[in-house]
Parts: sequence; C-alpha cells; structure tokens
Amino acid sequence: MRHTHLSDQDVAEEMADAARLAILPFFRQVDLETENKLDAGFDPVTAADRDAEKAMRAVLAKRRPDDSVLGEEFGHSVGTSGRTWVLDPIDGTRGFISGTPTWGVLIALGDANGPFLGVIDQPYIGERFVGQDGQAFVTGPTGKARLKTRAARELEQAVVFTTFPEVGTEAECEAFHAVSRKAKLTRYGMDCYAYALLAAGQVDLVIEAGLNAYDIQAPIAVIRAAGGIVTDWQGNPAHGGGRVVAAANSDIHAAALGILGTF
Amino acid sequence: MRHTHLSDQDVAEEMADAARLAILPFFRQVDLETENKLDAGFDPVTAADRDAEKAMRAVLAKRRPDDSVLGEEFGHSVGTSGRTWVLDPIDGTRGFISGTPTWGVLIALGDANGPFLGVIDQPYIGERFVGQDGQAFVTGPTGKARLKTRAARELEQAVVFTTFPEVGTEAECEAFHAVSRKAKLTRYGMDCYAYALLAAGQVDLVIEAGLNAYDIQAPIAVIRAAGGIVTDWQGNPAHGGGRVVAAANSDIHAAALGILGTF
Repeated sequence: MRHTHLSDQDVAEEMADAARLAILPFFRQVDLETENKLDAGFDPVTAADRDAEKAMRAVLAKRRPDDSVLGEEFGHSVGTSGRTWVLDPIDGTRGFISGTPTWGVLIALGDANGPFLGVIDQPYIGERFVGQDGQAFVTGPTGKARLKTRAARELEQAVVFTTFPEVGTEAECEAFHAVSRKAKLTRYGMDCYAYALLAAGQVDLVIEAGLNAYDIQAPIAVIRAAGGIVTDWQGNPAHGGGRVVAAANSDIHAAALGILGTF
Repeated sequence: MRHTHLSDQDVAEEMADAARLAILPFFRQVDLETENKLDAGFDPVTAADRDAEKAMRAVLAKRRPDDSVLGEEFGHSVGTSGRTWVLDPIDGTRGFISGTPTWGVLIALGDANGPFLGVIDQPYIGERFVGQDGQAFVTGPTGKARLKTRAARELEQAVVFTTFPEVGTEAECEAFHAVSRKAKLTRYGMDCYAYALLAAGQVDLVIEAGLNAYDIQAPIAVIRAAGGIVTDWQGNPAHGGGRVVAAANSDIHAAALGILGTF
C-alpha cells in the first residue's frame, strides 16, 4: 500500500530529516568509537551510520512498504514494486570522523533504468541538494536556489574534483592525473559534496573509481536533473558503481572520456 | 585613541561579521570573475577578497586606529601601538571559487611576541572559531562549544591534514609524505578549515609549506588557546609563515618534527 498523499520527494526529504537527527549527535564527538570493517586499510563505520540507515528504513517501512531497499549497512530488502531506494547513511566516513562538513546522506530512488530521484544532504551545514525529472534545487544557509550545471568550456579551463589519491588503484590514479594535468584546477577530499558542487555549477568534472552503487546513485539523479552527465569511464551507465566520471555538460564529458577511455 | 568599551575579541568579531556580509553575495555566483595574480600557476583573487579586507579595515580605522594592519590584499599600514592585526579576507581562494565551504576569513592580533588573538570564520556555514589567552570556542550550526585539542596518541593512530599536493616544493611534499605514510589517515584540500578542526579536537596534525604570515597567524592563536602547538619544521616560531606543523599536543608534535626536521 503506497501512501499516495506523499510524493516520492516528500518521502525522501522525510528520510533525510530522520537521518540528520540520527547523525548529528555523533558528529565531532571527541571520543567517537569507530571500528574497522576491512582487514586491511581504514574504513570506519560508526554508530551514526547504522542509526541513520535504521531511521531511513523506518520511514520507508511506513511510507513505501512495497519498495525494495539497498543500504550500505543493512544490505538488500526485496520489495514487490520494482522500485528500489538506495541509501548511504554517511558517504565519506573518513571525512566524518575527521570533523569535515563534506560527508553526506545519500538517498536515491530508481527502477530497472537506474535512479530517477536523488538527495545529497549535509546535516551539519543544513544543506540539501535534490533532483528529479529535470528539476534540481538546493536549500541551505542562504535559502533555496535552482541547480544548474556549468556551460561548456575547454578542459584547460576546467575545475576537477576527486577523492584520489585516497581511493582507486595506481592505474586508475594515473588515468585521473592524465585528466587533472590538463585542467585549470584540481581539488581533493570533498567526498560526495563534490557531486553536489557539480550540480550547483561550481565545478566541471568529478572523477572517481572503486565506487559502490550506493555511493553514486543519488549523485547521478541530482546531477542529471541539473543538466549534467554521469557515466563510467567508457561512457556506459554508472549506477552500479566502479569507475565514474560526472560532467557538467556533454563537451567536457567527451573531453574527459577521450583521456580516461584509453586507460 | 582606543575605544576601551569594546574588547579586542569584540572588535575581531565585528570585523568577521563585516567580512561575512561583504563576501557571501559573491560565493557560488556562477560567473564569478577571477583574475590571476601570478604569471605562472593559478591564484585567483576575487572582488570578495578586496571588499572583505576593506570592510575589516574600516572597522579597525574606527575601533583601533592606532594599531598596525597587515592584510593580504592591501599590504601593511603602520600604527603606533606596537600591535598588529593580520588579515586574510579569504584563505583558500581555490576552494572559494570551487564552491567548497572550507575557505575562511582569518583575523589575528599580535605584538612583537606573535599572535595572541585569532579568529577563523566560515561565513557560509556560519561557523566561527575564536581563541585568546588559553580560552577557545566555536559558534556554529549546533551552538557554542569549547575548543580543546586531542590527547596524545601514536603517529600510527593520527589523522593528518594538508594542502599538499597543491602547494609546496617536491622536497617539501616528500617530507610531508614521510609523515603521512606513518599516520592512520590523511585528508586533503580543507584550506584553513583544517586548523579549525585541529583546535576542535578532530585531527592530530596539519602540515603545510609555502605559507604567508597572514595564512597562519590566526590559526596559531586559535590552536594555542585550544591547547595545541604550532611551529615551523624545526620547532621554531611559525608566525612569519613558511613550513608549518600544527599539532594537537607535544607528543605528536615531537613525532612529526622527528621526521620533518630531517628534510
């Protein structure tokens, strides 16, 4: 039974509100407990992650009980509607445990064709980027504004964001640098906030690798609704994760693929 | 004539308020005009930089006319009091023109012994880090809180921030990596916000090079007031700029110097 008096966007915002409440008490706590999910490397997961995903799943259980849910912390719950909510309660846990305000709550809703609704929420700033059906907007400290990606410009004039050198193989890092060397400016360490800034028309490219589906589906929906393009490094759909290039427009997308596609 | 009814901290906050008003209308404007101060490389300066420094200097002309002022945009105005306000209207202009919320307004007040009052202000988040005389606090989206640097831990458990690889020589970058390789987690691209997070007890070390006096004096005052230590890579005073290591406590400071001092 779907509660049709609430739109999907309303439900997504209710989930983002619930996640904010769950997460903020943990943010910048001095003795935040983290644990290590991987045997090698450092991938902290906090109680905030789990509490936020539980809070979002509770909203879905009430508002959209027939939909499937895929979340980073609690896996895949299969529904009957053919629609799937894809959740990352805290994208950028490294940033979260370091106190930076560039992690985010990611919420996507999609079907067999991929995500069509996306939310990127930054609870500490109180900033939310939402996109669906060619309409994208941000609400935040300075009010509400429409999101629109940048107009085309040469790669030599472009601003590029990435999480390299923190993620990816050496070969992938080299591919990134082949693009980065030609760009005007490269910035690091922004987690999912980089995709929000691309949707907001502030940057031209975001290039990453080693992503999971829940890392990229919300950015795909927000960026597409703002006029941008997100694919893998060969130009194919990226909603399964892996190597991703997000671009403000088709020209800069083609320029990036022309380099990344050779790696 | 000094208006003694306003404390230095009051004046610094009045300056930070004025800078916020001057800067925010320019932030995330899609067609923000930038120009290049250097013949090589990319060092954008915007109208926001200049308007903010003018606004801060106007406060000082009224409130502290006898003090000297050293600012990034308009140089050195020599006063008679023996005290100097050191201003960077937008520290992190690369971040500013990319839309990230990690640039900041830096305000320091010092004398012949160096800075004793510091403000790191992030106008978009509405977050302000202030330190003086062993008292440091932050005001922001979640209210007001005392700032206290982290307790000692091994370098292998430390979180390190830097602006490398964007700044510094290759040799300096190699020195940084010698520390970074031993740390638990390294994060990039946070501009002056990294120093604020160190004061807030979120990270253990910030390591940079190629700084100017106006980049580091406010962070020095805030971090010292929160219990931390800031020196150059040999352990000498850093308020002139250059190679800087900011540390949460004397143990991690010594561990970093033990590596950086050999470069």
